[in-house]
Amino acid sequence: MRLDAEIALAARLAEAARTEIRPLFRTALDSEAKSDASPVTIADRNAEAAMRKLIEAEFSADGIHGEEYGVKEGKSGRVWVLDPIDGTTAFLAGRPIFATLIALLVDDFPVLGMIDQPITGERWLGVTGKPTTFNGEAVTTRSCRELSQAAIATTGPHYFSQAEGDVFMALAAKTNHKRMVMGGDCYNYACLASGQLDIVCEAGLKLHDFAALVPVVEGAGGLMCDWAGEPLHAGSDGTVLALGDPARLEDVLEAMAGHEGHDHH
Amino acid sequence: MRLDAEIALAARLAEAARTEIRPLFRTALDSEAKSDASPVTIADRNAEAAMRKLIEAEFSADGIHGEEYGVKEGKSGRVWVLDPIDGTTAFLAGRPIFATLIALLVDDFPVLGMIDQPITGERWLGVTGKPTTFNGEAVTTRSCRELSQAAIATTGPHYFSQAEGDVFMALAAKTNHKRMVMGGDCYNYACLASGQLDIVCEAGLKLHDFAALVPVVEGAGGLMCDWAGEPLHAGSDGTVLALGDPARLEDVLEAMAGHEGHDHH
Repeated sequence: MRLDAEIALAARLAEAARTEIRPLFRTALDSEAKSDASPVTIADRNAEAAMRKLIEAEFSADGIHGEEYGVKEGKSGRVWVLDPIDGTTAFLAGRPIFATLIALLVDDFPVLGMIDQPITGERWLGVTGKPTTFNGEAVTTRSCRELSQAAIATTGPHYFSQAEGDVFMALAAKTNHKRMVMGGDCYNYACLASGQLDIVCEAGLKLHDFAALVPVVEGAGGLMCDWAGEPLHAGSDGTVLALGDPARLEDVLEAMAGHEGHDHH
Repeated sequence: MRLDAEIALAARLAEAARTEIRPLFRTALDSEAKSDASPVTIADRNAEAAMRKLIEAEFSADGIHGEEYGVKEGKSGRVWVLDPIDGTTAFLAGRPIFATLIALLVDDFPVLGMIDQPITGERWLGVTGKPTTFNGEAVTTRSCRELSQAAIATTGPHYFSQAEGDVFMALAAKTNHKRMVMGGDCYNYACLASGQLDIVCEAGLKLHDFAALVPVVEGAGGLMCDWAGEPLHAGSDGTVLALGDPARLEDVLEAMAGHEGHDHH
């Protein structure tokens, strides 16, 4: 896809989000005092508001699906999916590995994805049919010949249900789990696209959490799917797998299914 | 303590480590092919060698205790403790939240600590009796009035034994565990010193993992100790607690001991 105007807009969205987010990093925020489950920050809201305004000005017929301000229906069959701060907990902890996620869906499938880190100035861009770039340079995932050598990542066991955690552990046990890293949110998928991780396995993700990751990972040579191996789209169930080396998909699904007791004989 | 020459040397050590580490970040390393438990990188070895050389040139009577090249006995009662890359797994995953750790022990207790992030250029410096600085500016931990509001961090459950993991979970359950973050290694202690986290709880740490953290956290107003509440020194058992607000120590130890079934009545 060409999408030149959309790529240029995504870059402007990310810049607008950076402007809102950067001054609030490592400051005491209103949400410090709240006991709410999912910390929502001023930065989150301001960044999304700034991005929505830019989209509405340029592509008024497109829908918008944002983490903070919900769904604006469109008339074009296209939807911009925004997560101003993916990794709010990391942001609040002072870690510069949260990111702004921007995706464009056409007919419910992501065709453009951007992962932008406002503090370090790192930006990954994926567009269907094009090589993924990191700050303008093409990046690729790495090959992984044996599952037992794979480096796996997940944001944390506390984000899994008991059953999901058991599936994850069954998979992790088949990888080089001395290489396993926790934490990271969307940043893990960016690192996988850059050839630094082999597998990311998560559950409970929302559309705004995973939509932008798909073009980034796939444009770098990787594969993204749900835990059943199906492509991710607006109606996916929130289970997410990313593989740097698509050749390992069967091994990964077998490792996960083995534990679930599915009949794979 | 004055330690002006030692502070200046620590800064030069960190610069020397940056020079070795930066070019190797997000490159494919030799250790990719190894199945070893603790990935050891070229960057790790080169950075420690460069630092040892500088210490030997300036303070030849001091001992050196390095993660990579072991112990050089000294004659001064002082020991430099070096971990060129704390968070090797994070480094290999492409995350810029590993760090170079540099500590100076006098009579087995840390009096100077530096946490240096080579990629982002972030540097925390702690010296006994002085305010901790982040890139030259003083930082302080934050107060935490209720354990139930605390944000807790640990690098990952896979670094705990079963018994240690149970103790950690007993503590985590008393915190605001929606704010819990995994991953992070030494970077968690730096974020705690900057007032972004309330508790870090880990076990199995070596002297080179924790020595530098103590002056950084304590100079920012926090407290570090082992899981028995005792000060950390060269002979500590590797259990480590960091609190941003020292007033929460009793609550934290009670939460941990409650699970262990110790007699704390």
